[in-house]
Amino acid sequence: MRIIVLGGDGYLGWPTAMALAHRGHEVWALDNYLRRNLARETCSEALMQNPNLHDRADLFASLSGRKIEVEIADCADYRQLSPIFAKVRPEAVIHYAEQPSAPYSMMSFDAARVTLNNNLNATLNVIWGVVQHSPACHIIKLGTMGEYGTPNIDIEEGWIDIEHKGRKDRFLFPRQAGSLYHTTKILDTDLLWFYVRLYGLRVTDLMQGPVYGLATEAADQDDRLAPNFHYDDIFGTVVNRFLVQAVAGVPLTVYGKGGQTRGYLNLKDTLQCVELALNNPVEAGVLRVLNQFTEQLTVTEIAEKVRRAAGQAGLEVKVESIPNPRKEKEEHYYNAKHHGLVELGLKPHLMTDEVLVDMLERVAKHSGQIDARKVLPRVRWN
Amino acid sequence: MRIIVLGGDGYLGWPTAMALAHRGHEVWALDNYLRRNLARETCSEALMQNPNLHDRADLFASLSGRKIEVEIADCADYRQLSPIFAKVRPEAVIHYAEQPSAPYSMMSFDAARVTLNNNLNATLNVIWGVVQHSPACHIIKLGTMGEYGTPNIDIEEGWIDIEHKGRKDRFLFPRQAGSLYHTTKILDTDLLWFYVRLYGLRVTDLMQGPVYGLATEAADQDDRLAPNFHYDDIFGTVVNRFLVQAVAGVPLTVYGKGGQTRGYLNLKDTLQCVELALNNPVEAGVLRVLNQFTEQLTVTEIAEKVRRAAGQAGLEVKVESIPNPRKEKEEHYYNAKHHGLVELGLKPHLMTDEVLVDMLERVAKHSGQIDARKVLPRVRWN
Repeated sequence: MRIIVLGGDGYLGWPTAMALAHRGHEVWALDNYLRRNLARETCSEALMQNPNLHDRADLFASLSGRKIEVEIADCADYRQLSPIFAKVRPEAVIHYAEQPSAPYSMMSFDAARVTLNNNLNATLNVIWGVVQHSPACHIIKLGTMGEYGTPNIDIEEGWIDIEHKGRKDRFLFPRQAGSLYHTTKILDTDLLWFYVRLYGLRVTDLMQGPVYGLATEAADQDDRLAPNFHYDDIFGTVVNRFLVQAVAGVPLTVYGKGGQTRGYLNLKDTLQCVELALNNPVEAGVLRVLNQFTEQLTVTEIAEKVRRAAGQAGLEVKVESIPNPRKEKEEHYYNAKHHGLVELGLKPHLMTDEVLVDMLERVAKHSGQIDARKVLPRVRWN
Repeated sequence: MRIIVLGGDGYLGWPTAMALAHRGHEVWALDNYLRRNLARETCSEALMQNPNLHDRADLFASLSGRKIEVEIADCADYRQLSPIFAKVRPEAVIHYAEQPSAPYSMMSFDAARVTLNNNLNATLNVIWGVVQHSPACHIIKLGTMGEYGTPNIDIEEGWIDIEHKGRKDRFLFPRQAGSLYHTTKILDTDLLWFYVRLYGLRVTDLMQGPVYGLATEAADQDDRLAPNFHYDDIFGTVVNRFLVQAVAGVPLTVYGKGGQTRGYLNLKDTLQCVELALNNPVEAGVLRVLNQFTEQLTVTEIAEKVRRAAGQAGLEVKVESIPNPRKEKEEHYYNAKHHGLVELGLKPHLMTDEVLVDMLERVAKHSGQIDARKVLPRVRWN
């Protein structure tokens, strides 16, 4: 298949590009280094140095014999995106090309403006690239479980049947997010659903939980192929932050009460999920929503898991609560369905001690580069 | 009160600015003539010539003794909007500053891009203008009944209580619109609701149905103060189109089966509703949604009303169905609640023969300027 991976330099994009090339697909990885630039501007660089996308692709080709075509271009600019769609006429596009940080989106007006405009225009442009150049293309879009927020009812997979005053209809599941970044993903879904109805597009919208992990089959060939690992408060996610704190010998900092529950998944499972979506495309005019995570955990449970794994690795770790920089419920009902991907064949890799110990060992190799201050909250919206 | 009317040159904005100035408020009318420019580009100019905003404001001042401050500025550009908020520190802002045409938003990629970027950035900038310069300001935002679409259940006022598998929560009423323009209003609501929760803003989101009418107390002082009257397929709404067709002696063109039901209101009632919202502000942290219309009608019913009124004015009128240029249901359930504004004191002006005859007479004065071809669909998305 001819596949474009938008945001191909990202934590998910790069491993996805490698995995799909490895399967024999023709892969184009497109990125404009927005995340690298914003990370540098906010002193949030990844722990390990990652070669640029051209160099990574060259290295991957030399090791695997598989080619990844690299395009440095801005998805939010249609003059840049359209010719690539016209040239490739993709059969599938994996759309990760968004400003990915919730805290970044809450830093300032300018950060909000960048997030809103980048993310919405990227999605609008992908839609029109497909409409104008490859109408049967399957758009696989990265959404987030954060679109649903933390409602007091069970979270279904994208859709809900509502019976109201004796009448019934089916709607997108209600969404209410905790950051502007997450809100832009809600807007993306609305935009996609509108154009799916209008033009009969084929879209899979993946409501993904926070991802952790550094190991993938292709990345493990060479350290320089590793996904970028952010551990700071802005671009890092909670598991990464805790692992780095454990290695750095500082307490794991739980935001508030730690009862915040989310659905998590291993990076290997992101790759599985995307491939399952790809191999099981949807009909024209369908917006399929899949909840993409493998296990529900509270922040306190994750801290405990990391503490235990660190103990096995000989590291003594404390857990402490700090004031929550985010406006969010710290104790709440949470029961999110995630049948769709399991029915397509997902075999979960769970957050076991073994997985966490492996990550701790990988992080420990770079302990000299850790700046533990960057893990503490620098952005507050509470 | 110090009030900024954004989109103050518009069909609603200009009458609103006059009405509020007439009440003794300090009014700033802000516009960048986007609608006039797009109307010219698409050969969709208003039937009557409208003086520019400065000239209208001067004329209004000379007749009423009331001043309307005019600012020619682009709401979608924060560098233009922010200093005005900083200077005025408004107690209320009426936000009409959006690309207002559904057909325009469906013309092309560029029209979609303009609509999405103009509307979303205008709303983001209004939010931040308030946050940074006047946090207690009441934002009165023009949404549209079109956000709800045509669901098979009763449409509530903005919110719905959902009971699902034995648990309950309250959510924004599900929304699913029929054009990109209407979809941007959904996105606006999502954005406003997020920032209301976050920063404790005060927002009233008016879900307005199609408006008709030329008469307002202030506008009737002088023809040159009349609201702009678009009668074409792009910027005109259905009532206006039918009135012009009746005067031009061509058949009233109903799209498809004509069973499309919407909630309509008289321009005088828009002014009432906005003033009621203004005089009854919401608490901090509240997004109040009000369904703003006075009567539900099908397109066929409107055609019949216009035919009957035209008969009274001595005009013989035919009604004919043409292929629907829009993708929409032509027969559907529709039952939308609209208690909120009535409870605040709204006294409706309905679409009576008298009202329609008065409009026909006003249109007839300009019959020489009518180009009846412009009423027929030039934009299709079906």
